[in-house]
Amino acid sequence: MRLPPGVASADFSAALEQFEAAVGKQWVFTSDEDVDLYRDSYSPFWHEQEEPVPSAAVAPDGVEQVQAVVRIANKYRIPLWTISTGKNLGYGGSAPLLGGSMVLDLKRMDRILEVNDKNHYALVEPGVSYFDLYRYIQDKGLKVWIDPADPGWGSLIGNAVDRGGGRTPMRDHFDAVCGMEVVLPDGELLRTGMGALPNSKTWQQYKYGFGPYITPAFSQSSLGIVTKMGIWLFPEPEAYLTGTVTVPKRDDLKPLVAGMAYLLNSNIVMGTTSVGSPLNFMRADPQLAALYAKPGGATTEDLEGFLHSRNIGYWSVELPFYGPAKVVQAQWEYAKQRFSSIEGVKFQDGKLRRFPIDPAEVPSFQNSVAVGIPSLGVFGVGGARSNGHIWFSPVVPMTGEAVLEAQKVFTDAYAEFGMPTGPMFFLGPASNYARCFLILFGFPIEHDVEKNKKNRENFMKIVKVAAEHGWGEYRTHTAFMQTVSDTYSFNDHSLRRFHETVKDAIDPNGILSPGKCGIWPKRMRKATA
Amino acid sequence: MRLPPGVASADFSAALEQFEAAVGKQWVFTSDEDVDLYRDSYSPFWHEQEEPVPSAAVAPDGVEQVQAVVRIANKYRIPLWTISTGKNLGYGGSAPLLGGSMVLDLKRMDRILEVNDKNHYALVEPGVSYFDLYRYIQDKGLKVWIDPADPGWGSLIGNAVDRGGGRTPMRDHFDAVCGMEVVLPDGELLRTGMGALPNSKTWQQYKYGFGPYITPAFSQSSLGIVTKMGIWLFPEPEAYLTGTVTVPKRDDLKPLVAGMAYLLNSNIVMGTTSVGSPLNFMRADPQLAALYAKPGGATTEDLEGFLHSRNIGYWSVELPFYGPAKVVQAQWEYAKQRFSSIEGVKFQDGKLRRFPIDPAEVPSFQNSVAVGIPSLGVFGVGGARSNGHIWFSPVVPMTGEAVLEAQKVFTDAYAEFGMPTGPMFFLGPASNYARCFLILFGFPIEHDVEKNKKNRENFMKIVKVAAEHGWGEYRTHTAFMQTVSDTYSFNDHSLRRFHETVKDAIDPNGILSPGKCGIWPKRMRKATA
Repeated sequence: MRLPPGVASADFSAALEQFEAAVGKQWVFTSDEDVDLYRDSYSPFWHEQEEPVPSAAVAPDGVEQVQAVVRIANKYRIPLWTISTGKNLGYGGSAPLLGGSMVLDLKRMDRILEVNDKNHYALVEPGVSYFDLYRYIQDKGLKVWIDPADPGWGSLIGNAVDRGGGRTPMRDHFDAVCGMEVVLPDGELLRTGMGALPNSKTWQQYKYGFGPYITPAFSQSSLGIVTKMGIWLFPEPEAYLTGTVTVPKRDDLKPLVAGMAYLLNSNIVMGTTSVGSPLNFMRADPQLAALYAKPGGATTEDLEGFLHSRNIGYWSVELPFYGPAKVVQAQWEYAKQRFSSIEGVKFQDGKLRRFPIDPAEVPSFQNSVAVGIPSLGVFGVGGARSNGHIWFSPVVPMTGEAVLEAQKVFTDAYAEFGMPTGPMFFLGPASNYARCFLILFGFPIEHDVEKNKKNRENFMKIVKVAAEHGWGEYRTHTAFMQTVSDTYSFNDHSLRRFHETVKDAIDPNGILSPGKCGIWPKRMRKATA
Repeated sequence: MRLPPGVASADFSAALEQFEAAVGKQWVFTSDEDVDLYRDSYSPFWHEQEEPVPSAAVAPDGVEQVQAVVRIANKYRIPLWTISTGKNLGYGGSAPLLGGSMVLDLKRMDRILEVNDKNHYALVEPGVSYFDLYRYIQDKGLKVWIDPADPGWGSLIGNAVDRGGGRTPMRDHFDAVCGMEVVLPDGELLRTGMGALPNSKTWQQYKYGFGPYITPAFSQSSLGIVTKMGIWLFPEPEAYLTGTVTVPKRDDLKPLVAGMAYLLNSNIVMGTTSVGSPLNFMRADPQLAALYAKPGGATTEDLEGFLHSRNIGYWSVELPFYGPAKVVQAQWEYAKQRFSSIEGVKFQDGKLRRFPIDPAEVPSFQNSVAVGIPSLGVFGVGGARSNGHIWFSPVVPMTGEAVLEAQKVFTDAYAEFGMPTGPMFFLGPASNYARCFLILFGFPIEHDVEKNKKNRENFMKIVKVAAEHGWGEYRTHTAFMQTVSDTYSFNDHSLRRFHETVKDAIDPNGILSPGKCGIWPKRMRKATA
């Protein structure tokens, strides 16, 4: 039997008995076969001792059971690592940051407590997936959209509290959260926002409540276990229209992104839009490959000339519009007018879609997630075989200048690492969040210990390179939470010290998700600093 | 000399000398003439001993001076009550909640550190008012709008951290906050969000940073002193259009509000809109007065008949549209179509305004605040003489049913209090915040001690009546923070106990704004509980 760190075998056995009494014997998992299912399927520590493997797992069903589990964990100082449902691929899976932690698995708590299509919100438990909520809404014929993460098996709560993003107007998942129920590290039950008012009529309709607004402190957090969450939904719009803008030259990125920023910040474009280059999809072209192979590589003139000869633009962006048919058409016309000052700009009209759509029409969407229909289509991207990847995901300003700078900085870093690059070797830059760009890089995972060691070193290096340029990660794999936290160091880490003070006050025994986002409980802090 | 509670005279004198050394003698105020300026101009405790009068005031200029003040206050355990600029009329003015607190006045810190009209944000200090920022933007010809609170003299930081509201698409002022710099109760300097990353490029562009998102814990809070704040601005739109919808019958409120909720939640209407009744402005009409004077009062049939005879609707709402001219016209056409199923509905087109507007045109706006131009016009409302008022401001669901219920509940309460009512005796219900209605009632202040005592009793009663119906206040006057906090009592006040635990950890000497929103530091808690 694996043991939690610092917990004696007899104590752990006693604790496991109590967990079984609290949640039922069949919902406490201790065999290697069962527990291994909670390991990270794409761990950057594959085949290494350092891989953080859980000691056991417990799956309560209901708030009282969660409270009971937390009280037992306090008694024996057993670290708990909370997960819900879905996979969290690329960010650590369901494995804890600290090896030997017990996984607190909330997937059985999968009740959809309310869906309101008059004021457009839902109240859900952690085990509810995008697929679950979508099906529920479809079955009842409700006129609301969910905003799925790219993989539809994800948990609404899990993704929102990790501050994940989607594609529709409600794409900033944490921003859509309205009110939570939380089990605190001492087993107390808390409701935030208007939920603190007994029998509140607006728990899912007004976020802030009265006094300090504390709901957000439970995102990317080890301060509590979210057992219920309100989330705002988007009213089913009349129509959806896309329009594509293509510009011919590299420096056209600057006015292109400036126009995007205006449209997004004005709520004319309300969804995720991503600036990309057709060059990205043409690497196999012999003429292009020859240009890259030149001594010194392809120049901007080379690339612009090549693209011109093929009548292809340098940059391209697809803008999504949501709303009444005549409104989205007027919005697209306005966008065209706004971009028309870029010499050589081209526009391509997408198809106007009206809702509700015929289910038979769903496969015709390039990405149904953009219209609120969950999918697993993201796993078809590229179709290339790989051993998996972890995400490097910095936030950069929404300007063409910043994107070009980031491209150069990260290309240089990749070259130093001996990793392949191209004109655009990342996903994005995308507007999953208001007012900035998120860039996603898939860092490889290998079945080779030495390669993984090298990859981990490179990951730590690129986080530092990004930080030196003023770009920070929005989220990261458990293996690199300390590295990323270390870059958020203003005034000798005053923010982390603030978090540690709060952590020690709220979780004095340090049982909840030790090390999450670089925050360790007092009893483990020195050992890890 | 007035003394802070529990501080010996000699200690206070020593502290004042140290404050003078830190900020300059002329910026420490101790004379009654000076200190009286910080009293609440419309205190519900007028002429009573209980009025919480400050002991002194200190006005630092700069972060280091704020840190020095906080360190001295810690040494002598002097409670500080932080204010910025503006008046906070109706919610306690600049007076502390706890009598004898020293006012920490940040109005001298009035630097506009950045305004960006490419990504549409500002970085400001606490003393910057809406007028200040508006003038700065106009002088530089920047293409961004601010969202002023109704009185333009308010502080952007003060209003946002109190979670005030405005009227344009950026009307939820706290929601527009992106990144803070905060002096903690122990004098430490913190930056939140991406500000924790040294030389961050996205401090004002990505809210969350990494790890628990803590910025919101500094709203309606006594956990820190906000010394810098990023705030998102709205890109100057091409046009602004209003359209008025009027419906004939009382029960038409239900489909009217349902339509409003759809338009607001879809971002088709992006500003504050308020449902009202023309009856509210016709109280002097003899025929109407006669109906009200009938035994049992006016029935719905009476009122509908009266309005029908005058060709006036029962309810009316003005919808604001912001965006490209053709888009706002299409939005208004869509809104008309959506409301057209209400029998007898009437529509009135407003004038299309294009920006930038000619300054000479400003006075022609009924309310320039709705187009981002700060004003003091709100003080002209009604033009009636009064001794002032305090705000009772509950949040109710955005449904016609809830508004009708609230109207009945509060009318009954007012009748019990012997206070005048009418068909609509409140401001709003308004969409200053997404997905709910805020209702504002002006509770009177008198120069009569007995009347004020009665008014205070009534205020406490109506807070409880609201809570019994599941409606909580979004904000309240300092005199009633405890009363309102008491209603947010889920699970034996677990939220307040959470806040107290955090407060004790972060502010162990209990020096910052004791009692704010019902949260007292440990050393004062028992005495006030």
